[in-house]
This record gives sequence, C-alpha cells and structure tokens, in this order.
Amino acid sequence: VLVSGMPDDALVAGVRAGAVAAVARAVSVVENARPGFETLLGALYAGIGPARRIGITGPPGAGKSTLAVALVSGFRAQGHRVAVVAVDPTSPFTGGALLGDRIRMEPVALDPDVFIRSMATRGSLGGVAASTREVCDVLDAAGFTRILVETVGVGQSEVDVATLVDTLAVVLVPESGDGIQMLKTGLLEAADLLIVNKADRPGADALQRELTVALDLRTGAMAPTHGGARRPPVLLATASTGAGVGPIVAELDAQWDWQQASGELMRRRERRMMQRARDVIDRAVHRWVWQHPAVNALVDAAGDDLRLGVRSPYQMATEIVAALQREVQS
Amino acid sequence: VLVSGMPDDALVAGVRAGAVAAVARAVSVVENARPGFETLLGALYAGIGPARRIGITGPPGAGKSTLAVALVSGFRAQGHRVAVVAVDPTSPFTGGALLGDRIRMEPVALDPDVFIRSMATRGSLGGVAASTREVCDVLDAAGFTRILVETVGVGQSEVDVATLVDTLAVVLVPESGDGIQMLKTGLLEAADLLIVNKADRPGADALQRELTVALDLRTGAMAPTHGGARRPPVLLATASTGAGVGPIVAELDAQWDWQQASGELMRRRERRMMQRARDVIDRAVHRWVWQHPAVNALVDAAGDDLRLGVRSPYQMATEIVAALQREVQS
Repeated sequence: VLVSGMPDDALVAGVRAGAVAAVARAVSVVENARPGFETLLGALYAGIGPARRIGITGPPGAGKSTLAVALVSGFRAQGHRVAVVAVDPTSPFTGGALLGDRIRMEPVALDPDVFIRSMATRGSLGGVAASTREVCDVLDAAGFTRILVETVGVGQSEVDVATLVDTLAVVLVPESGDGIQMLKTGLLEAADLLIVNKADRPGADALQRELTVALDLRTGAMAPTHGGARRPPVLLATASTGAGVGPIVAELDAQWDWQQASGELMRRRERRMMQRARDVIDRAVHRWVWQHPAVNALVDAAGDDLRLGVRSPYQMATEIVAALQREVQS
Repeated sequence: VLVSGMPDDALVAGVRAGAVAAVARAVSVVENARPGFETLLGALYAGIGPARRIGITGPPGAGKSTLAVALVSGFRAQGHRVAVVAVDPTSPFTGGALLGDRIRMEPVALDPDVFIRSMATRGSLGGVAASTREVCDVLDAAGFTRILVETVGVGQSEVDVATLVDTLAVVLVPESGDGIQMLKTGLLEAADLLIVNKADRPGADALQRELTVALDLRTGAMAPTHGGARRPPVLLATASTGAGVGPIVAELDAQWDWQQASGELMRRRERRMMQRARDVIDRAVHRWVWQHPAVNALVDAAGDDLRLGVRSPYQMATEIVAALQREVQS
C-alpha cells in the first residue's frame, strides 16, 4: 500500500526516527485525510504519549505568537524538540499574517529541532479538533517532546483546544478588558494558567488582581494543594523582551508534576483517548453509511417525495436507520 | 407524545397559525434539539418554501445589525412578516452586545409581526448550520415571508451561511480594507450582493470601484443578463440614516425575480433540500450507532487495549464497522 508515494513502512519508520521530510509528509497526509491516513495513524498509535501538549489561546493582539516563540526558545534551552501547531481560523475578514507564518519569520524557525505547521480550520473531515489532535499524534510519535497548539480566540476553537492538550494557557493583555467577559464563558474553567502579557503596560497589575479574585471565587473553598483542583496561577510577562517567560516555563513544569501526582494527567489523557476513539468510529460509520449503495439509492429515490413535501427528510432518515437496524438484528 | 409540555398537534397548529408563543416554543425545541424536535420538523416540513431567506454577513463593525433593522422596516412596509435569526459566535473574547440583542433594542422589535432570535454557535447537534436551517424552517412554516440570517464575519459561519439562504448579502465599510482580502476566500464567490455601508465616509466610492473590478475579473466574459451567472451589484448605503436601503430592497426583489426566471432559485433550494436530508440521516445514524449496545460494549471493552497501545482506535473503528457490515449483509 502506498501512502502519498511512499511505502507505509518507510513513512512510519521515518516519522518514528523524527526525519523532517517524513514528519512533514505524514502531517500533510493526516491533515488532509488523504487515503491511508488512518492506517498511518494506527501504525504510529503505540508511539504517542511522551509529548507534553500545551495550548495557547487568547484574543487577537494578545501576543500569542511572540509568547509561543519565547516558549519554544525556553523549551529548546531545556533540550526539548519542539513542535508548534497553529490553528488558524479561515475568516475572510481577518487580515494580517497567519499565526504560523508569524512564528516562521523568527530565527527559531531555522532550528532543525523545531517544527511549525499551520492548520486551516476548514474542510477537515471530522472537524478541526479531531484533525488537530491527530496531527499532534504524529508529532508526538515523531519524538517532539513539547507540542504547542496555538489558536486565535475568535470562535469555538479556544474552548475545544482545551480537550486537545494536557495544559491550556490563556493569554490576555491589560487593554483588552476581557477579564470579566471571560468569566461568562467556559474558558476560565478550562484554563490551567493565565498569562497577562505586555505587562509593561498600564493596567497589568489590576488585571492580574481581577483575574485572581475571579479564580478565587470560582474555586471557592477548595484546597489548592490537595489534588483534584488547583487554582490556575496568573502570571505577568512581556514576551517581546522575554521578561516573565522563565517563570512560565517553570510553572508549566510544576503544573506537569502536579498533574502526574494527582492523577489529573491520566484523567485528561483518558478522556482524550476516548474522544479520539469516538471520532474515529463516527468517521468510519459516516463513510460506511454514505458508501452503502442502499442508502444512496434510498436518498436518490426519495428526491421527488422530498421535493413535493410528500415525505420529510425526517421520515426518510427514520426509514433508512430502521432498514439498517432490521438487517443488523436479523 | 408531548413536546415541551404541549401536545405535538397543538404546537404544530400554533406554529402554522403563526402564534408567537408557539413559534417561540417550537424554535427553542428545534434549536436545542429537545426530544421530539424532528417529529415537529417533520410535521412542519410540507409548509416550508414560501419564505425568502436572506443572509447578511460582514466584518465586526460593518453595521450589519443597523442594516438588518433598516431592512426589517423596508420589508414591513411591503407588508411582510419578518424574522431575524442572528447567529452569534460564542467567543469568550468578543465583547459588546450580541447581534440579536442589538436588534432587540430597536423599536422594530416591538412589532408583533417581527420575530428575533439569537442562536449560539455551540453545542448544537449536527452543527450550527443544520440547526440554523431548521430554525428557519420553523419560521418559514410559521408564515414569516422574509427571514434574515445575520452572522458576524469571524469564522467559518459566513461561508456556511451561503448554503442556508436564497440570497447572500456581504456588508463592508470603507475603512475595513477587506475588499482584496475577500478575494482570497470563497466569500466573493458566494455573495449575491455587496453593500458598502457607512458610504458617507471617505473611501466608499473607491471600495465600490475596487469590488466592481474584482467581480468583473471573476465573472470574466460571462453575459450577466443571460442566466446561469449574474455579476453581484455593489451598492452604497448608510444604514444609520436609511440612505440606500430602498435600492437594496429593490435589488433583493430584482434578484429574486432573476433567480426564479433563471432556475437558480430551484437549484439552490434543491441543494439545500438534499443537504437537509443528509444532515438528518447523519444525525439519525450517529444516534443509532451510539445507542447500539454492541458498539458501546466494544468501545468499553477496548479501553484497556487502547490504553496499552495494543490496539489503536483505527483498528477498533474498522472492527466495529466490519461487524455492522457483516450483519447488514447477512
């Protein structure tokens, strides 16, 4: 079987060895759901797990890309191979450089132990969440020990990203005034770490206090050091100068230790594993149903009835599922 | 069978009669996919069709809500009952009033023949596109003859909305500088009408020319008056004063006449009908598979194998579909 012009085995071996060309090719195969992508993922499955997956999200202009570059340098200094997956919303209205492109312009992008990939959020079979998770799986199996997943905060993706990573950092800036707005959403619940970036600007301390109070209200009387729950710290940073980046890297390490000790990491990865399984089954069932000649024949035959309003698509769907059910039970 | 505390028949009759309380209840049932929502949609199915569904999209700050209010007034003056469905992206970072809320603050919202509903873009079974289309179906069956679907242009929704409506209007403003940016996306292909709003500001004429040139390049040598294709007009308006709104309403009427005469309306509605059917089938199959005891048993049993990496979710999915297939073929 050929995947993208390369025998499966060679591609799998290349990814496992961390060979850049193989990794880039495998990521493309998976991102675009090319023929054989699930075979490839299946072959790499046993190799996933070692990477720490860290999400970064926040409003446009919060400096996420600058922070990502600073974190990449920090992780490199610790000896890690680092991958960055930038999930770009494909809006016709958001101008400016794409997230991944911004990082690619930095010197860090020339480092052979740094891999950068932009993901478009359209057209991916099974949704961008499933697709991003699977690209991370490839990078994980390829031996990258830190994977940053960066999303711009303009849609659903910033909450979804929480389900894709081990740790989620939310980046805010003093002038954005989003502190309170965030409280109304699920994002504060999902955040493991809050970063007030551009902390050299007025209002940074006030925002830090405001967020700390909000988090205290949320966590209530929970004992932060006794597992099960942990109040996310609110750190100040100025990513453009590197100020505060060291403490963020240290906090991520501390967070990891706590997650391992408390069992939280295992719980999150278990959830992710089951979500992965459900997505894969959904995709396989979807493919099966729509390649099933009987289903397509029924839909085609029903066209006139639907057009005339004689039958509704709801009746049709019930009939199709009933037909499948009858056959399954016979 | 009870839907939301009301017998099906009474709810269906209430919607068909256009009773506000019944419409509001039916919309909620459908939007939240409450038990019985598909039965309800099935009962209303034969009544859909008369409404003209018009999409409005554009970048934040383009004045979409102001324009929507002006169009509502214009349609009311023509004697139409008007519904507005505002599809809000549930971003934790976009502050300010929700689209629907802005319209609700206008006097037009007090008109009993105007119905306004905000849709959140999260948590809807089958995605926001399917859910929005079905809410429009309810409003269509309830006798609203103009349905405006408004989306903020910050995600995928503004391209998806083109598949939900008969006509798509894209709103821009002189200072947004989005004209060229739009060319790179599918949105220009999807637009039936471009509106340069806030046309009393500098640069409106230049943007109009720029868009016209871009559209001419796109349509190339096609004869605009001979069906099959039609160059979208680029109209100037200042929605806040009402300037240019009359011509937009007139253009929408002309557009409709052309769509009917050319068969374009039929083609679009046929596509929408088939998409509706596919979505409903997908949803029914999804439900069936995940309520199937064998599937859940297989997933549960595979947990340990997945955890140990002995089996991958890809193998598991293949096995589950193979099991279903074998049974279907026996």
